[in-house]
Amino acid sequence: MGMRIIGSGSCIPETKLSNEHFENRSFLNEDGNPLNYSTETIISKFAAITGIEERRYAAPDQVASDLGAAAAAKAVASAGIDPESIDYLIMAHNFGDVRSGSSQSDAVPSLASRIKNRLGIKNPDCVAYDLLFGCPGWIEGMIHANAFIRSGIARRCLVVGGETLSRVSDAFDRDSMIYADGAGAVVVEGSSVPGGVLSHCSASYTQEQAGFLYFGSSHERKRGSDVRYIKMQGRKIYEFALSRVPEAMKKCLDRAGIEIADVKKILIHQANEKMDQAIVSSFYRLYGMEPPAGIMPMSIRLLGNSSVATVPTLYDLIATGAMPDHRFDPGDIILFASVGAGMNINAMAYRI
Amino acid sequence: MGMRIIGSGSCIPETKLSNEHFENRSFLNEDGNPLNYSTETIISKFAAITGIEERRYAAPDQVASDLGAAAAAKAVASAGIDPESIDYLIMAHNFGDVRSGSSQSDAVPSLASRIKNRLGIKNPDCVAYDLLFGCPGWIEGMIHANAFIRSGIARRCLVVGGETLSRVSDAFDRDSMIYADGAGAVVVEGSSVPGGVLSHCSASYTQEQAGFLYFGSSHERKRGSDVRYIKMQGRKIYEFALSRVPEAMKKCLDRAGIEIADVKKILIHQANEKMDQAIVSSFYRLYGMEPPAGIMPMSIRLLGNSSVATVPTLYDLIATGAMPDHRFDPGDIILFASVGAGMNINAMAYRI
Repeated sequence: MGMRIIGSGSCIPETKLSNEHFENRSFLNEDGNPLNYSTETIISKFAAITGIEERRYAAPDQVASDLGAAAAAKAVASAGIDPESIDYLIMAHNFGDVRSGSSQSDAVPSLASRIKNRLGIKNPDCVAYDLLFGCPGWIEGMIHANAFIRSGIARRCLVVGGETLSRVSDAFDRDSMIYADGAGAVVVEGSSVPGGVLSHCSASYTQEQAGFLYFGSSHERKRGSDVRYIKMQGRKIYEFALSRVPEAMKKCLDRAGIEIADVKKILIHQANEKMDQAIVSSFYRLYGMEPPAGIMPMSIRLLGNSSVATVPTLYDLIATGAMPDHRFDPGDIILFASVGAGMNINAMAYRI
Repeated sequence: MGMRIIGSGSCIPETKLSNEHFENRSFLNEDGNPLNYSTETIISKFAAITGIEERRYAAPDQVASDLGAAAAAKAVASAGIDPESIDYLIMAHNFGDVRSGSSQSDAVPSLASRIKNRLGIKNPDCVAYDLLFGCPGWIEGMIHANAFIRSGIARRCLVVGGETLSRVSDAFDRDSMIYADGAGAVVVEGSSVPGGVLSHCSASYTQEQAGFLYFGSSHERKRGSDVRYIKMQGRKIYEFALSRVPEAMKKCLDRAGIEIADVKKILIHQANEKMDQAIVSSFYRLYGMEPPAGIMPMSIRLLGNSSVATVPTLYDLIATGAMPDHRFDPGDIILFASVGAGMNINAMAYRI
């Protein structure tokens, strides 16, 4: 029994913030001292490296589960299924629901329970849980769904990824410009039609790497606040991702016995444009090749890095024709890949 | 391929708080007004209903992942396995790591990553993730492990449950006396020996019930603080659990084709002694029977309600001979059951 995606949806919040929004920020170093550049220079360097020009933020009255519920409702509608037929509702996130103006995250009840409530699903046998696995959480949720379907305990699953990184960003940290809010979702089901999920691979690097992405103090040290924010050791993440992600992608293809030439699209976590390009170049280098033009659709310029939401959102944008330069055709092989807090990495090969 | 428990461990924090500890508290109603009883009376009523005489709190320098790591290390040692051979490390919790004195929860990196780090496991193929499913999270983690093993993507898993409810308790709410800290863990592996996990069943009731257990304001209204705490609608939970948990337990036995007379022990989430007794009585009533003496080992008197940790801790206490009135013999059928935030319910039938 294979597993196929039968519908998708995404929730892209309406509030757009361009890079100019940050022009009056006073970015500080990790040690609390001002950076040696003007904010203008910091922003232009930032844009050159990350590719980000705009990002989306949730409205003040929205939390991650609201975004997730909106994406999930679209996925269910696009699948054309009765939502009562869903066996598992899996919600990937990392910070729970963080209300605007609050520093507390809330995941009781689970965000999956909240989404199920919002979708009006009454069937108690639809089991709703949250999965925390860093940015690769949504792909990991797909791997869970695949295991449930293959082991016979589920037929249909709704896999959602949603996050509001804007609620855990430190305004004094230039990395705050990377973070965005959003959600994406797909409905999957067991299928005897060949194709669907062909292989997957996951890894957790937790020795030297566990602290590369963490919850830490503001760069603004004087106030002595103990509020913590999402923090990253960018250089270390970059080097780690460059050596480990291509390896996982190759392992995934090898497991499925797929030739590199047959890969039509790589849907990679929208972390940072330069890093994603370097990962994909390094991946093709494993085969002595250059990445083909158009292999890697990117949404980061206009949407920023919305954690678990980037990959399902990218899938949905292509599936619904919202990215004119990209499309999925029957038989196409898509390679999904992600890297994030944990540090976790995963990849999944999928035939449309 | 079945799944068997091959080792267990628990972490019971050293700090004991007897009911007398709460004698100077000023408990308030939900509306912020004093209760109509003396604190002494409130405590004695509390003890009569919940059965709780003592509870354990983590030391100020410990967080949930510390407790989880300690329990996990014992489980690995008791299994006598090389920890590098573990394919999945699943950590069930609901509030993340909440430091003493802080109101923020921290789950980046995931608590599973932190535990893997603490165990010194280097193998990146040991996939570490967190599962949020209310108090039934640990049993749900066992169901995940079973699916991974049955679908061929894992052979050995470490399933941990850990929580520090003392860090999210409202001192003005008498329910705060229920909450405790702790962790429990087991190592499971695929096995062709008959027995192990025989059946399971999970349910999420998220329509009227999603808000029965939630993160809400302090009963102390005057300070106007927006810090939130674990809150429950006790009466509603009691009625819900009494009607739904016995049903799930029966469904689980029916799936495995097990006669009620063959059940040797019921390991139920230590939520509240009277509620647990009522659930088990109601369960046996479905078969026209009274619960046999000694069917339900209880640890709540001395350990309180430590959320996801109660069931694996209870298992470990019996498996290691720490509860002289209870033991597991080869062939014994054990029925695990839990209920909690979501509202989620699950049950698992297991043959020793």
